[in-house]
Amino acid sequence: MQRWKLTIEYDGGPFVGWQRQPNGPSVQEALETAVTAFCGEETLVQGAGRTDTGVHAMGQVAHVDIHYPATPKTVRDAINHHLQDNPISVLSAEAVSEDFHARFSATGRAYLYRILNRRARPVLERGRVWHVARNLDADAMHAAAQRLIGKHDFTSFRATECQADSPVKTLDRLDVSRVADEIHIVAEARSFLHHQIRNFAGTLEYVGRGKWTPDDIDRILAAKSRAAAGPTAPPQGLYLTKVVYG
Amino acid sequence: MQRWKLTIEYDGGPFVGWQRQPNGPSVQEALETAVTAFCGEETLVQGAGRTDTGVHAMGQVAHVDIHYPATPKTVRDAINHHLQDNPISVLSAEAVSEDFHARFSATGRAYLYRILNRRARPVLERGRVWHVARNLDADAMHAAAQRLIGKHDFTSFRATECQADSPVKTLDRLDVSRVADEIHIVAEARSFLHHQIRNFAGTLEYVGRGKWTPDDIDRILAAKSRAAAGPTAPPQGLYLTKVVYG
Repeated sequence: MQRWKLTIEYDGGPFVGWQRQPNGPSVQEALETAVTAFCGEETLVQGAGRTDTGVHAMGQVAHVDIHYPATPKTVRDAINHHLQDNPISVLSAEAVSEDFHARFSATGRAYLYRILNRRARPVLERGRVWHVARNLDADAMHAAAQRLIGKHDFTSFRATECQADSPVKTLDRLDVSRVADEIHIVAEARSFLHHQIRNFAGTLEYVGRGKWTPDDIDRILAAKSRAAAGPTAPPQGLYLTKVVYG
Repeated sequence: MQRWKLTIEYDGGPFVGWQRQPNGPSVQEALETAVTAFCGEETLVQGAGRTDTGVHAMGQVAHVDIHYPATPKTVRDAINHHLQDNPISVLSAEAVSEDFHARFSATGRAYLYRILNRRARPVLERGRVWHVARNLDADAMHAAAQRLIGKHDFTSFRATECQADSPVKTLDRLDVSRVADEIHIVAEARSFLHHQIRNFAGTLEYVGRGKWTPDDIDRILAAKSRAAAGPTAPPQGLYLTKVVYG
């Protein structure tokens, strides 16, 4: 038996999310079906992060145990072959030891949230960005984001259905910058609460349009109430870009 | 009557190209229909460049004459409104004098050609790049591209159906660089021959994989024969990025 670490890109649009669910196609199910088609084995593809419905990944990581002997290139290409028309691509496959666990060995996760900030609706990037027509102040958003860095009780930014044991997390990075007509929010932490980044994005958008100031972020954090923060930004702007190990 | 300069983004995928044609939907026709729906006038939307079937634009420019009085914002937003689900967006509308002509006043055109150069097929960028799985040497491609700079008879890179009076053009810029797992080819000239950039891309791909060297470019140029150059790269990697005036 060999454990394989897979790095995966996907378009979250057509999926109910990473996790296998009875109500629709999931990325996990598509990968498990492809692995079985390749090697004939029933497997569990364990992901590092459970991305929500519609959320994309450029660098999701998963592991899977396969008895069928194969090279890394074969594992990658064979799974991709059997994924057929699913908008999922295995970027690399790497042989790892059995103490590697995609989720529990991860020491960091990085996400990108993309806002297309222009009047005209997205065309080339449709389904890939949150479209905000009103002009946003990226500098104010960045200043506000810095109030969120560090160890905090993030209850105000946590989905009510979040299953994490504790709302206390340490946020390592939350940078906001303008890139041509987009605003990029880069978030890094060991782990995130459910909807945490989309709730950050929805709240920072309020700052960007001048409804709130950076000082409001302190108030929102202190409130420890989801109702205190801004709305949850839509999923199609969010990308899991990297999972860090070791 | 007011002449309007429109800057336009579109996904070329569903269109037969910029130019109105009897055999399918064109970007020009979609825009003309939207303008008529907005102001009730039959108009000609004159574009700066006739992009081919499947070729995209981030910065196509067109002009249109409208009698109905309106502000630039209204022109932009109203056309966008009436474009409905067409993957076309008017980024800006600017009032210009009647001696402005989108095509004949243009003094420069810039294109980007994107190659996704990795083993795994495109997912997030599907329909937006040419996928080349074999590893390409971007430095060799750039070196070869420099042989094409300047004034040349570009017959070897010209589609047989090209209607330009002369195959002699002056190429101002042809830069090839690697950007993460993509290779970007940036081309700038006053104007281009039909398929010229896609034929550059197909030829440079041969250099990138080591089939040809930069010296072959000199041979190909001198041959003045389409058969001497590489194949025409597919349309979905090509973007009209900018039209320069004055």
